[in-house]
This record gives sequence, structure tokens and C-alpha cells, in this order.
Amino acid sequence: MTSTPVPANPLRRSDDRRLPRIAGPSGLVIFGVTGDLSRKKLLPAIYDLANRGLLPPGFGLTGFARRDWNAEHFAQVTKEAVMEHARTPFRERVWRQLAEGIRFVQGEFDDDAAFDELARTVEGLDAERGTGGNHAFYLSVPPSAFPLVCRQLARSGLSRSEPGAWRRVVIEKPFGHDLASALELQKVVESVFPGDSVFRIDHYLGKETVQNLLALRFANQMFEPVWNANNVDHVQITMAEDIGIGSRAGYYDGIGSARDVIQNHLLQLLALTAMEEPVSFDAASLRAEKEKVLSAITLPKNLDLHTSRGQYTAGWQGGEKVVGYLEEQGISPDSVTDTFAAVRLDIDTRRWAGVPFYLRTGKRLGRRVTEIAVVFKRAPHLPFALADTQELGQNALVIRVQPDEGVSVQFGAKVPGTQMEVRDVTMDFGYGHAFTENSPEAYERLILDVLLGDPPLFPHSKEVELSWRVLDPILQHWESSGRPDPYRPGTWGPDSAHDMMARDGRAWRRP
Amino acid sequence: MTSTPVPANPLRRSDDRRLPRIAGPSGLVIFGVTGDLSRKKLLPAIYDLANRGLLPPGFGLTGFARRDWNAEHFAQVTKEAVMEHARTPFRERVWRQLAEGIRFVQGEFDDDAAFDELARTVEGLDAERGTGGNHAFYLSVPPSAFPLVCRQLARSGLSRSEPGAWRRVVIEKPFGHDLASALELQKVVESVFPGDSVFRIDHYLGKETVQNLLALRFANQMFEPVWNANNVDHVQITMAEDIGIGSRAGYYDGIGSARDVIQNHLLQLLALTAMEEPVSFDAASLRAEKEKVLSAITLPKNLDLHTSRGQYTAGWQGGEKVVGYLEEQGISPDSVTDTFAAVRLDIDTRRWAGVPFYLRTGKRLGRRVTEIAVVFKRAPHLPFALADTQELGQNALVIRVQPDEGVSVQFGAKVPGTQMEVRDVTMDFGYGHAFTENSPEAYERLILDVLLGDPPLFPHSKEVELSWRVLDPILQHWESSGRPDPYRPGTWGPDSAHDMMARDGRAWRRP
Repeated sequence: MTSTPVPANPLRRSDDRRLPRIAGPSGLVIFGVTGDLSRKKLLPAIYDLANRGLLPPGFGLTGFARRDWNAEHFAQVTKEAVMEHARTPFRERVWRQLAEGIRFVQGEFDDDAAFDELARTVEGLDAERGTGGNHAFYLSVPPSAFPLVCRQLARSGLSRSEPGAWRRVVIEKPFGHDLASALELQKVVESVFPGDSVFRIDHYLGKETVQNLLALRFANQMFEPVWNANNVDHVQITMAEDIGIGSRAGYYDGIGSARDVIQNHLLQLLALTAMEEPVSFDAASLRAEKEKVLSAITLPKNLDLHTSRGQYTAGWQGGEKVVGYLEEQGISPDSVTDTFAAVRLDIDTRRWAGVPFYLRTGKRLGRRVTEIAVVFKRAPHLPFALADTQELGQNALVIRVQPDEGVSVQFGAKVPGTQMEVRDVTMDFGYGHAFTENSPEAYERLILDVLLGDPPLFPHSKEVELSWRVLDPILQHWESSGRPDPYRPGTWGPDSAHDMMARDGRAWRRP
Repeated sequence: MTSTPVPANPLRRSDDRRLPRIAGPSGLVIFGVTGDLSRKKLLPAIYDLANRGLLPPGFGLTGFARRDWNAEHFAQVTKEAVMEHARTPFRERVWRQLAEGIRFVQGEFDDDAAFDELARTVEGLDAERGTGGNHAFYLSVPPSAFPLVCRQLARSGLSRSEPGAWRRVVIEKPFGHDLASALELQKVVESVFPGDSVFRIDHYLGKETVQNLLALRFANQMFEPVWNANNVDHVQITMAEDIGIGSRAGYYDGIGSARDVIQNHLLQLLALTAMEEPVSFDAASLRAEKEKVLSAITLPKNLDLHTSRGQYTAGWQGGEKVVGYLEEQGISPDSVTDTFAAVRLDIDTRRWAGVPFYLRTGKRLGRRVTEIAVVFKRAPHLPFALADTQELGQNALVIRVQPDEGVSVQFGAKVPGTQMEVRDVTMDFGYGHAFTENSPEAYERLILDVLLGDPPLFPHSKEVELSWRVLDPILQHWESSGRPDPYRPGTWGPDSAHDMMARDGRAWRRP
């Protein structure tokens, strides 16, 4: 953990939480500022933070990219991104203050002069805007560029902080494409930045509903006593998209859905769902519990029977004719990349022994939804007539991460009438209905946390490593097993996905 | 239990439940047919049963009353009651069939000739309508008349059934006004009708949401594991009315709220909430569990500190000026009758040791509501900052019996924003929204059960006796403790009610 004095850590046990969490003097440098993520998420999130008064008045925002822009043009691009994508209303005064701190450096990543220019720009911000030598570098660039950018940051002295100040680096997934490459990447990054200055973004962890999972489990007395193998039958974690790969062929092909989603998002959700109660919510306590879970994961012996991988074919979705993965632009016609992946994992702890965790993700599925479903066992004894419970399923507690964020409980209730028939009903809590507060975007939360040096919501390198240890054997098995199974757009994946559940006497939920 | 063959008992473990529960050949005699209950509840319920096809085509309905009516007039009164109060639409064909079986006998309860006439009427129904000698006698009369009516039914031979046929008696609360009078009443009734032919109506038990309590507890796996002293802090059972005594002075004065509501409704709700899982839902199994709970109830040592009784004063309610209890018509100005009663009871079982059950009822309270609230302990360890959980209450599972029937769970969720603040939210299930099926009225269910000889929803004499054993010492204590505490209309009872909770470090819910 960083030793920089920061405002109260909101996840740490302390009484001073009500102090506003406002970033101190600082600046953010974004590499790859011309990309989609920057325009749609990062720049709007920075404006929203400024608008909420959570950035220092002299905040510095520097763009670095290959294109022949200048500060004025970058400011204009930022303004347009804010107008289009910011969550909070546009206010001229806030914008003007933010715009005064906008800089731009043009260059390639192998261009020493450009990085020297960046170093001077950052020094200039310290002098003109009072950023105090505190700078974060956001690498919104392909992972292949990480080593080069890190080396340049080291060479130009940008990675080194003065006493009492800080330098941090933010990296986006994928953190490698297997265990070996992840360890290699880690070595490169940590040779330049100390471990506690590296912030790995998993934007799912910045989502309100994911953080609410912690509140749900640990601020309540009703749920934790049944949150174990005595009562839970299995857990299903789903992240489904209804879109195809769009224009991301270059990124996606060869990576696939398991590396893109299971390795990071789904294993993080699994860890938060399955972990023991942490002593507190500081980064060290939280990570310790997540690491325990990740290191307790065991794989099924026969991966053929308990995993599934698919690739979407051409077909119809939402009344529209769509091409198959192999016909997508930029995809080789013999690609074996998975656009759907499902795995069964077990957790070898006292709490979860015998309770499978089923993870699935995919593109071109039935609808866009991310949810965690804790499915309970059937009641051991039913004093009801058999015929009365024919339509009774299993209790389930479902955390809807997106869209329509909330929590619901599926349980059995008596059907009105003179019989004692029991049928499944749903009790619901909708985030949007319960709170008038507008939920901040995940990136607002995470960027602020970077500037505050507040790491609980960022996966530690150890977690990344453990996740690859889980996924590597599955990926290797798939590599030696021919082509992924085809599935039609708008369905819930290939037959093999259904078969792997049916073999266990279970079925995927239709979310 | 009755040995009469009846269609499948819906609460019994068996596979033939889907057989429709249709009453066999039978008739119902109502004493006190000119009263409010009869007009508003019983007659409409009988029509609704007929309309749903659950009564035999030759059903007989006989009224007995002092007034100088005849069958035509009684039929007319019934029709008007049906038009005004029935739940299902009026259908001429159904009505005509029902009306053909309507009879009326005029007489006083001490008039032998009238009862002989009733016996001939009932025999006539057997001959003309095929009621088969099966008759139920519904005593919608003051309890003081029970002994006389029972003796008359015996004298005239009406209480005796032919082999293979049945005679049953239905009685309404109050079942006595204390233990001694209840035992006396029981002796009288059971000298005429065998125990399994006596049906004590507690219309709360006919309510869908009360029966749903059984489904909720025993058809689900999520709730039962936390339904005990390890997790529950206390239970609150409330039956509140916003009206005064209206025109019921004659019935109410000297009885009061504890006898009127706690002795029957609230102790039955307590028993269903607290009982162990029955082996099945047949009457014997269900009653065995309820009796175990009722016999395990212990009273607080100091009744002054842990009970409260009140009497409403004059004041304002719903924008209207209302008189105090002592000014109500027919009430003596020095009456000490309680219109509000609250008691703390403990249940001396392993499941509930140390978990108080708070019962309260009253007239002229804040609003009309009946609910059971299971309030959970606070989580033993909160990894959250203290300031973040300031607005976090205790988890509660609330069964709303009326109005707006349903179930809700109060739990803590994260407040959207960059803090880890946790606040209470509610997850809700509404009966009316979940099912398109229209809920039958309690009296429909209960009258059908009488005709079917299906007793699980009727309290056994033993339960009545045990309930009086709980209430008697409290009533005796109050009798020797002066006047009830005054409370203003529209409030939630006297100060003493709040004090008794505050002493335990708790507070009543505002339902």
C-alpha cells in the first residue's frame, strides 16, 4: 500500500469516512487518448469527477498519441466526448477550469524525444497548475505496447516520484494471454513501478452492484448463515452480450471470450461471491480473502464434460440478419477463437465443498445481462403434497450487475385458492427505484481511487496470476480439441453448454 | 379427525391433491342470520363457493332467527348481500340454483317448537334436495347463547348424525372470556358434538397470507436456517385498526382488545411463526406443533414492565374529530376495558430461547394493518466504517397479512456513490401483483373446509385452552392495576407500550 497521505479510505474501518474523498494535487496522462475507451469512458468520467468537485482545481490532463493533434484540438475532442457521454450536466465554469489543465504530446511510443517532451509537459503542469509532482499514467493501449511505454516512462524519469509525491500506472486487461505472458508483463511493469503503484483496472469492480455484493453479504445477518454448502446447491455467474465482436476483430481474434471475460471479470465476481468475510475492507484484507478463494479453485478432472466453448454462426438476432464469427471483417475463416465459454469450477474450502460454480460468457447470446445467481438446495423435507410442489423450483438469490441493477430472491409462495399449491415468485429490489442518488460510472470511481492511491477495488498481481493458473489448463485443453461448437445468434450458446449442466442434473438460468 | 370420506385434503401429503375439493351433499344452518357477519361475510362466501362450483347442486341453506322473516324474504336478503358483498360476479343461473335450497325458521333459542321445526326443515332438505343428512350448524350468535343452542340441537335430535352422514357445529370467538369459562363452554359444546365435529372459526387462519406463512417457512430452503435464536433478535406481531368500537359496545365492553384479538388471532399467528416443521399438514400434525409452542410460552416475571394496556381518548383521526372510548355510546364512563394491549412473551424452546415475541393490538391506532415482523440480529462483525453503517437498521422479514398482502425483506444495501455507505432498503413481493388468481375470502375457505370436514385451519380446543393459560395471568394482573393508560387516536398506543420496548433496548416498527 502507498504511504502517501490521502483522504479517508472509504473501505477502511474508521470513523472519519464522512470526510469528502477529494483527490489532492495531481495530473493524469492518458496514452491512447484517441481510442474509443478514452472518448466514451475516461474523458467523460474525468469531467464528471470535476463536476462533482472531486478533482483538485489545478488538475492536469495530458493526452499522448500518434496523431497530429495539439492541446486545443485535444481539448475540443474532450469537450465533444463530455457533451456526448458525460453523466452529469455540462457546466461551462467546470469545463473551463478543467480545460485550462489540458495538454497534448504527439509521438510514437519508441520516440524518446516525445517522452522527454512529456516529461517537460508534466513538470510544466507542476509549475503552472500545482499538480505537485503527483502523476498517474493511464495505459489505454494494446498490451503489446506496455513494455515499451513502461521502459520509456523509466528512461525519461517520468516513473520516479520526488519524496512525498507519487507516480502511478494504470493498466487495462488483458493482463497477458496466459500465465507465462502475464508473469512476463508483470515483471516488466514492476521493474519500472513498485507493486503498490500499479493499478489494474477491472471496470466490473467499479460497478455499484458489485460493491453492493459486499454490503449484501457482510452488512446483513439474513444471508450469510445460508451462504455455504449446507444450503447452496450451486452458483451461476453469467456475463452475456447480444452483440458480436463489432470492429474489435484485431483485439479479439486469438484472445476469445474466456481470456477476455472469465479470466478477469468472472473470476473476480466468483472471488467476491465465495470469499470469507474480510477483517476489514482495506486492500490487503480484501485481497487476502480473494486470493484464498482463487487458490482454492479446482478444475474438473474431465474438461470435455464440464466445459463448453462455442463460436457464433450466421443467423438472425433481434430481427436482423447477422454474419457468423468467421465471416466478420478481419477474422480468418479458420479461426478457432471462442466467442462463448462456460466452465465448471469447484472451490475446495469447508464453505464450498461440493458446490459447483458455473461461469459462462459469450457474444451474440439471448440478451445483454450480467448476473450472479446463488441457487439454493431444495428444502430437505416438504410437508406438502407432491402435486402441490410440482411448479416449485429452487430458491435463488440473484444479484443483477447489469442492466437494471438490483437484487432479487426467488422463493416459493402459496398460490391463492383453496389448495396448498406452492409456486415460485420473485421478491425484488431495484437499485434505480430505491435510491434517488445517481450511480457514478465505474470509471469515475476507479479513476478517483487511482488519484487517491486507494487500491481495494483493483486486482493485485497475485490475483491475476492465480486466475491464469485456473484458466491455463482449460485453454490448453481446448487448443488440442479441435474447433469450438457452433451456436446460433440469439441463443444461449452451443448444445455442449447445456449438456455440461444436464450431466450435473442442473440447468442454466434464463436471465 | 373425522372419518367421513372427503375429497383429498389439500394440506395432507398425498399425490391426489389435484382432485377438485368439492363439498359433497350437505346443508348449512346459520343461527343469527340477521347479523352483520352473516350479511357481509357468510352469505356472500356461500354464493362465491357456489359460483366457483364447489358446492353440491342440491346445497341447502337455512336461516334461523328471531325476526319474522320467511324463506322468500331471507332469500331476498341473501341476494342483496350477495349483490353487495360477493367477490365473484353475479350469475343468475348460479343464484337460482342456490336460492332453491334456501329455507328459513323463525324462533327464539328457547323455543322448542322452533327447533323441532328446524329439524323437519333439515329432513325436508334431505328429501327434496338430497343433502344426505349432512348438516353444519353455524352459531353466529353471542357466546352466552352457545349452551342453549347446543342443548336445543341435542334435544331436537339435530346434533345426531345417521351412520355415514355427519353433523358439525361451527363457533366463532370469543371462546370464553377466561380459562374457566372457556373450559365450561367446551364442556357444553362437546357434550353435544364430538370434538372432531366442532369447528372453531379463527378467520385469520383462513387468510391466504397466513397460509402462505407455512409455504414461506417450509417450502423454501433460504429462510428456515435463519429462523431461530441464532439469527433472530425478536418478533413483532401487530394487528392494528384505525377505527373505534363503532356499534359493538355491547360485545366489546368488558372483553377488550387482549381477549378479542391476542387470545385467538395473535397467539395463532405466533404459533404458526414459531412452531417446528410439522411432519405433514394434516390437522393432527399441525395442531401438535402449535400446541408445543403455546405450551412453551412463558410470561415475563414483572408484568408491569413488559405489558401495556391502553384506552383511546377523544381526539382527531384522519381529519375527523372522534370521541374517546368512555364517550362511545353504550360504554360506562368508568369502564376499564382495554382498547389497546401489548405483551412480551418468551418461548422456552431451543429454537427461541432468548427471543422475545412482542404482540400488540388496538383500535384507533395509526392505520389498519396486520403484520408479522421477524427482526434479525445485527451482523456480528461489520467490516464497514462506523459512520458508513449509521443508517443501517436490522434485517427484517415482514409478512403483511392485511392490507396489501405480501412479504418484504428489509436489508442493507450500498448507497450509490464513491463511499461504502450502507442503508436499509426493501425487497418486496406483493400477492396481488404476483398472481392473477383472485384470493378467496377467508370465509370461503373456512366454510368449504367445514363442509369437507377438513380441520387443519381450525384451532383445537387444546389450543384455545393453552391460549387462555397464557392470557389469564396477564388479565388478572391488569384487573388489579387500576385504569388502562390513555392514548390519542391515530397514535400507536400509550407511552407504556413504547416504554416496555425501550426497556428491552428495542422499538416497535411503524408499519
